[in-house]
Amino acid sequence: MKYRRIPSETVRRLPIYLRALLFSREQGKENISSQDMAVFVGVNSAQIRKDFSYFGYFGTPGVGYNIETLTKQIKKILKIDIIKKAALVGVGNLGSAVLAYPGFEMYGFDISAAFDNNPKKIGKKINNIAVESVSRIPTLKKRGINLAIIAVPAEAAQQTAEALVKAGVKGILNFSPCYIAVPKRVKVITIDIAMDLARLPYYMPAV
Amino acid sequence: MKYRRIPSETVRRLPIYLRALLFSREQGKENISSQDMAVFVGVNSAQIRKDFSYFGYFGTPGVGYNIETLTKQIKKILKIDIIKKAALVGVGNLGSAVLAYPGFEMYGFDISAAFDNNPKKIGKKINNIAVESVSRIPTLKKRGINLAIIAVPAEAAQQTAEALVKAGVKGILNFSPCYIAVPKRVKVITIDIAMDLARLPYYMPAV
Repeated sequence: MKYRRIPSETVRRLPIYLRALLFSREQGKENISSQDMAVFVGVNSAQIRKDFSYFGYFGTPGVGYNIETLTKQIKKILKIDIIKKAALVGVGNLGSAVLAYPGFEMYGFDISAAFDNNPKKIGKKINNIAVESVSRIPTLKKRGINLAIIAVPAEAAQQTAEALVKAGVKGILNFSPCYIAVPKRVKVITIDIAMDLARLPYYMPAV
Repeated sequence: MKYRRIPSETVRRLPIYLRALLFSREQGKENISSQDMAVFVGVNSAQIRKDFSYFGYFGTPGVGYNIETLTKQIKKILKIDIIKKAALVGVGNLGSAVLAYPGFEMYGFDISAAFDNNPKKIGKKINNIAVESVSRIPTLKKRGINLAIIAVPAEAAQQTAEALVKAGVKGILNFSPCYIAVPKRVKVITIDIAMDLARLPYYMPAV
């Protein structure tokens, strides 16, 4: 745990920087300046330099940051170089959209298990993933999957979280619009799309 | 524009505070302390007091913040008290999940139009919203809708954004996993669920 001192707001920005790096690499670039990065991510370049200084990365004056090196370093800090497999619970509209989402591969993620309680869905393949019964959630432990996405109706979210935690899951991305209680050792990030929509009007002219 | 000086990181947190207030109100509470708020939102109480001080709200010592007053004030700053109607473009899996999402109502949002280019979907009702042809996007201006959600495949995102901007849309929540270019006066927030997933492993023990 070399990077314990990185402020949580910097950690929050690391995936945003990573995204900018991955896009830039796709465009065939080898280096990126903090100014170009700033335009891409919407954070000022002083903040970017400060954020990178927390893990001792300073780039080369006049050249910028080496995309390959910085990408590896950020992936290592985020631990997404070693934690790659994720499970999905709930294959409704949202869950199906998650399975079809092309973005995971870019970060190296592999959604390698999907669970549902609907017998009509169990056994079907969606984007090459066979949907399994939720009764098989306990198998996650021996399959080495400790990261999970919850896309079940709100009323089923808590029991789903408990089943996942029991199966050894340590990180949960929760799409259900509700609070889920888990032991402190488990990290939950809840995505509330209404909350994201609520950030927009501030920047819009009053009608 | 009284609140121009509020830092963007504070603006980012306002919907999170609002969410905590709305949940607390549902639980029948009248006041909330900065300490309770801190537990709920995962920001320390000093930061919360600082954030609220930007718009001159200090609460009552020993009582905390009045939930009703603070809710109104945050809604006003975010302008979600006046900008409530939103349109959705793309009624696939993700778009359907958006239409069925119960969280918008809590913030006072009304997804009042939905567009798709699939003739099989046009005319159908999903969650009481009749799906319209994308050719009707230009009608948004006279319907007074200037907030939109894009849930179309990546290759259609840019042209969708352009049609929306032409129709007077000033704020876009973009679920397509790609960068969309819009005039500076238009605010875009892109949701990348893979990026959210990438924030989790940092907090997890290495396997």
